[in-house]
This record gives sequence, C-alpha cells and structure tokens, in this order.
Amino acid sequence: MTQKNSIGIVETQYFTFAEGDDKFPLENEEAFGPITLAYETYGELNEKRTNAILLLHAFSGDAHAAGYHQGDRKPGWWDEMIGPGKAFDTNEYFIICSNVLGGCKGSTGPASLNPETGQPYALEFPLVTIEDMVRCQKQLVRHFGIQRLLAVAGGSMGGMQVLAWLAMYPEMLRSAIPIATTIKHSPQQIAFNEVGRQAIMGDPNWKSGQYYDAEPPARGLSVARMVGHITYMSDRSMEQKFGRQKKHDDKPLKFTTDFEVEGYLNYRGDSFVRRFDANSYLYISKAMDNFDASGGKPFQKILKDVQAKLLVIAFKSDWLYPAYQSQEIVKACKRAGVETTYCEIDSTYGHDAFLLEIDEETHLISHFLRKVFYGYEVTGEYGT
Amino acid sequence: MTQKNSIGIVETQYFTFAEGDDKFPLENEEAFGPITLAYETYGELNEKRTNAILLLHAFSGDAHAAGYHQGDRKPGWWDEMIGPGKAFDTNEYFIICSNVLGGCKGSTGPASLNPETGQPYALEFPLVTIEDMVRCQKQLVRHFGIQRLLAVAGGSMGGMQVLAWLAMYPEMLRSAIPIATTIKHSPQQIAFNEVGRQAIMGDPNWKSGQYYDAEPPARGLSVARMVGHITYMSDRSMEQKFGRQKKHDDKPLKFTTDFEVEGYLNYRGDSFVRRFDANSYLYISKAMDNFDASGGKPFQKILKDVQAKLLVIAFKSDWLYPAYQSQEIVKACKRAGVETTYCEIDSTYGHDAFLLEIDEETHLISHFLRKVFYGYEVTGEYGT
Repeated sequence: MTQKNSIGIVETQYFTFAEGDDKFPLENEEAFGPITLAYETYGELNEKRTNAILLLHAFSGDAHAAGYHQGDRKPGWWDEMIGPGKAFDTNEYFIICSNVLGGCKGSTGPASLNPETGQPYALEFPLVTIEDMVRCQKQLVRHFGIQRLLAVAGGSMGGMQVLAWLAMYPEMLRSAIPIATTIKHSPQQIAFNEVGRQAIMGDPNWKSGQYYDAEPPARGLSVARMVGHITYMSDRSMEQKFGRQKKHDDKPLKFTTDFEVEGYLNYRGDSFVRRFDANSYLYISKAMDNFDASGGKPFQKILKDVQAKLLVIAFKSDWLYPAYQSQEIVKACKRAGVETTYCEIDSTYGHDAFLLEIDEETHLISHFLRKVFYGYEVTGEYGT
Repeated sequence: MTQKNSIGIVETQYFTFAEGDDKFPLENEEAFGPITLAYETYGELNEKRTNAILLLHAFSGDAHAAGYHQGDRKPGWWDEMIGPGKAFDTNEYFIICSNVLGGCKGSTGPASLNPETGQPYALEFPLVTIEDMVRCQKQLVRHFGIQRLLAVAGGSMGGMQVLAWLAMYPEMLRSAIPIATTIKHSPQQIAFNEVGRQAIMGDPNWKSGQYYDAEPPARGLSVARMVGHITYMSDRSMEQKFGRQKKHDDKPLKFTTDFEVEGYLNYRGDSFVRRFDANSYLYISKAMDNFDASGGKPFQKILKDVQAKLLVIAFKSDWLYPAYQSQEIVKACKRAGVETTYCEIDSTYGHDAFLLEIDEETHLISHFLRKVFYGYEVTGEYGT
C-alpha cells in the first residue's frame, strides 16, 4: 500500500492543555480551554533536541502531512516532501505537524464540544487568530522539551504562521521557510474569502452556525470551495488540464456541467463538504484575512530580533499569493539584516505549485536545511 | 440633470418580430417567437443609411447605453463614450444598442411570459447562443433598412457578439471593434461562471427556475455577482480602492463585513439582485461559455469573407479576458489578411477598464471610425 521512501503507517496523536481552571489566553478571549491539538510526528528527535522541524499547514490542511493512515490509499498532504531521503528527511530530522486551532481535523474548533454546555461551540467559539494558532503550536513544541526549532516551514496560510512565529518567538527559531505567502491579505484575497463566507452563511442550512444536529450547509460550502479551487490553479494550468473538453457529446443542457472543468469543480466542492466543517471555514478564513504580520508597522521592525536564516519561495504563476508579496517579505528581511534566500520557481501550477513542484522545492529545502543543521552542528556557535 | 455633451433624455423602444405563426429559428429551437428586443438609438440615420453603428452590451448590460431616462440620475452604461463630440459621435453617427435575447431588460428572456401558457418561460426558455443574440440584432438592423453597418462594437460579451457578427454577416460590416474579449472562453472563465450558476441553483429559492411568483434566489445571485466583481477588477485597482481599510474600528466580529472591500462586494451583490433576473444570469453566462467564434476551426478560416477593418483593444491588467486572448484575435485577422489595428491599453482597472478608460478609448475609436467613415465616403470604393 505504501510507496518507496514512504514513512509508512502513521497515527494522529493528541495533545491537550489548558484543562480545568488552567485556561489559556487567546487574542479575543481572555481564558479558553481545554485545547486539544491533533498532531503527527515523523522521524526521531535527537538527544540534544536540535533536529525538530515544525510544519504548518494551509487553509484546509491537517496534521496528517505524510505517510498513510491505516487502511488509507492516499498519503498525507505533503508526503512527497517528507520521508527518508526527502526534503524533510526523516533520517535526519524530527518533523511535527499539527492541525490548527479552529480546525476540524482533531484540534479544538467550532465543531468541538463546549465542556460547559455539552454542545458544539458553533459561533460561541472565539474568533481565533493566526497568532493564536502559533501560541498553541508553541505549547506543543515545549511539550516535546524542544527549546529551539531547526525550522518552521509552510505554504499559504502555513507561511503566515511561519511569519507569526518569526514575529512572536524569534529566539525559538534557527530557520524559517515561508512559501507562497504574504505578510497580510490584499483586498482581492479578502474578497475571495468573503465570497466563500457569504456562500456558506447564505445557505439556509447554516442557521447561524447551529447545524451540528441537522444537515450542514453543504451547497454553500461547496460553492466556497469551488471559488477556492479556481484561485489555487492558474489560467494556464486549467487550460492544460481541462481545455474546453466536454463531459458528454450531447447538446448543452440546462444547466448541467457541460465542460470537464465544471465537473471537476463540482466534484471537488462536493467532496470537500464531506471532510470539512463550514464553521471552521468561516473562522480560519477570517483569521487569514485579519492577519497582519507587520501589526501596522514596517515588517522589518518586527524582524529586529530574528537570528534565523530564511528561505522564501514563490511561484511565478501564483496569482492568489503573487510573487510580489513574497518579495515584500524578502525586502523587509534584507532591511532587518536577516540572512535570506529568495527563490521564484517558474511553475505553471498557480498557487497549488507549493504542493506540486516537489523536485524544485526538494532541491531548495534539503540544501537549505542541511546548511542550517550542519552549520550549527559543526561550528556550534549558535548551539542550544 | 443631464451633463454637458449628454444626448439628454432618451427612451427605450421595442421591436417585436417572429409573431404568430412566423416563428424564428434559433440554434437549439427550430421555431421560437414572438421575440421582442428592447433598444435605444442615439443620433440620426443619414439618408444613405451608411452611418449606423451597432453597440453590443456586456453580460449584465442593457439597451440603455447613453443619455438619461426620465427621472434618472445615472446615465446609460457607456454614456461617456456616446454623444455629441464623443467617441461614438452622435453628430456623425446613428447609434443602436439593444438588450440581448435572453436578457431581463425589456428583451425576451426567461422572465418573459410564454404566450402559450401565460406563465414566465423560466427554464422552458430555449438555451440561446451568442449567435442567436446576433441573429435577432440583424433583424433589428434590417428593420431600420440598414444594409451595412459602419461598425459593430462592444466589450467583453459585447466583443463576442462582434466576433459572431464577423463570422455570420461579414458582408454587413464595414468595421468592427472587439474590446477586452475572446474567441472562446478559457476553462478559468467557464469556471467563474459555473461558480455563479451553482450559487444561484444552490439557493433553495431558485426552485428549478420557478420563482417568479415568490421570493427570487437573491442570496445565490448576490454571491454570483460578488465573484463577478472580483474578476472585473484587478489586484492593484482593489488595493488602490480599498486597501485593508476597515468599516469600523471595533474588534473584528463574527462574521460581519469588517473590511471595506467586503462591504463593497456585499453592496454590489445586493443591488444587483434588484436589477437582474437569476435565470437570465444562467442563460447568458451559459451562452458565453458555449460560444466559440472559431467553431472548432482555426479562426482565420472563419474570417475569410471579412472585408471590415478591425480595431482590437485589450487592457494590460485585465486578467479575466487577458490580453493574450485579444492577441489571438489579431493573429487570426493578420493571417486572414484582415486590416487590423491592435492596442493594449496600459490600465490598472482590470476588466472594468473597458468602461473606465474613456480618454484612451475615445482617442482610438473616434480616430478609427472617422477613418472608416470618411475613407468610404470620399473614395466610395466600398460604397453600398
């Protein structure tokens, strides 16, 4: 079932904190808990605990980044990047990936039961931020006794978490790899998310979020996901994948899916509904829109305590997180004196490229990580 | 009320044909009728009937291209381009603009009463094509006794109609001005339309199109329009117009419109619902998606009988109808030996530029039309 260089069968683990009276402060809620993070680890933590890498997932991702869950035919979302001899080499590094706070894949989110009521939180769930997600991740990292991470890495919303880590806990990072991401959402990015939210909230099944004992707002969530998928691809990759290929030879019908591209989007929309919670869509998309790593200041000022080395990656055909947004990160790093490598990969896949351009990313990331890891190991000058 | 160089107060007219047993053949319906086209005219038809220009509107446009309807404060959709001394100079030319077949602004469409049942057609309305729209426009042009048009001009879906005119009635055209348009929709363009259709059809008020005696599918139509508006603007024009400006200073709320851009899109979506029929949205968007001016052949073959001169206009920041699609039109024209001028206007407005870049368009179009008009008038070599 598993493939060559796969890490094989993996299991999701759970870490719970802020239990009982020991609640946890969030940005928009003074005390919240308990909080559970679903997470997976791959490889082994070395004795000095210096080989840990935290991977941060994108909008609809989860803790299952690599390997196979028992009985599954599909591996984790970044499986081609994680494993023995791969970019995130499990022979060398200890990889951690956790589902974000507010998510619906095992971490505490709006679908979780509120212990005070015994009912799902729904909209009683606090309006979480990207920084809150990172605060929780720090608890998980500390739980492993790790003082300093070899790297934090992630694409899209994962990249935003990377930037939040740099801003909040610079002393805990040796390196950071923000991919296809931005310091803050542009109005166009906010606009696409808002369309998704309106599609969900306009579905009568949404009922102000109180749908957990009834039909979920499936039509609205599906439309939201369809919009998302268009923005993840490029004009050219859609042309290459679908062209104007029809699903059937008949005359066009009223108003079925005549074109392959329509069928694909409907299929992706419908299958998303089975694996994602609509309220999590609202919370997480809002967290992305509200995120501003610069906190209104020039971003280079935020980076003043950063000692980490950065590898910033963007993709030429990515129009959702265009390369200029990554270049803004790089410019701020240069101004702040942060050692930064920038690479713009010439891909046609659009935003999806960060999940698909495996060879290019492997080349860049494995080289970068090795330099950071053995650089420290050999000279010991920044040793923990 | 009216402004300088305005053509002043105008009234929509109605032209009905295919009445009684004299039905009209459409692409997907052997005999259909009666058909009414709502239209407006500006300027005067000259004695030889050689100064007529047919303007073709975009997706949500209508016959009211210029001047003011009695009591209105807003003029027609291309008012800055039409009037005395303007690009489409009503001192020189006779301008006709009609609402498309399938529309909801006075022309026969799905909301019209089916004379056989006394009920709105709804989905009994035939699946019209861009070519059907053009067939009806030809009836209107003939109704004025016009043998040959000085020009056909239009942007976006209007440009598709221009291309259909070139393919279907080349002998009736002296010139053609397709703006920000395409020979056929790319999968990305189809995909955005399909999202709009799914948003409408997913609204329980849609009821398979049978909503005319009840609440219309307003939420779905609004979401569809929001998606449209994002695609009409550019990343940069949204940045310039909205930035990350908030609507209020409070903490973000669950899940209201925190950002100006969200408020704008919701406002535009909601106001669209009051002026547009959801079934027309389905029919017209599908006509655009199904359109292929090349009919599967190389487009230059379609153009073999074209004697008209072409002015093709595109806009650099238009990512919905990218400039490469206009360049494909130009390439086919060159190969077919059609005299063609191409201009790519350096605008930041995105697809909306065709409604906003008035100075540039005026310069190009007024010069082009004068050359075509007086060229023929003086030499008479192509005189009708």
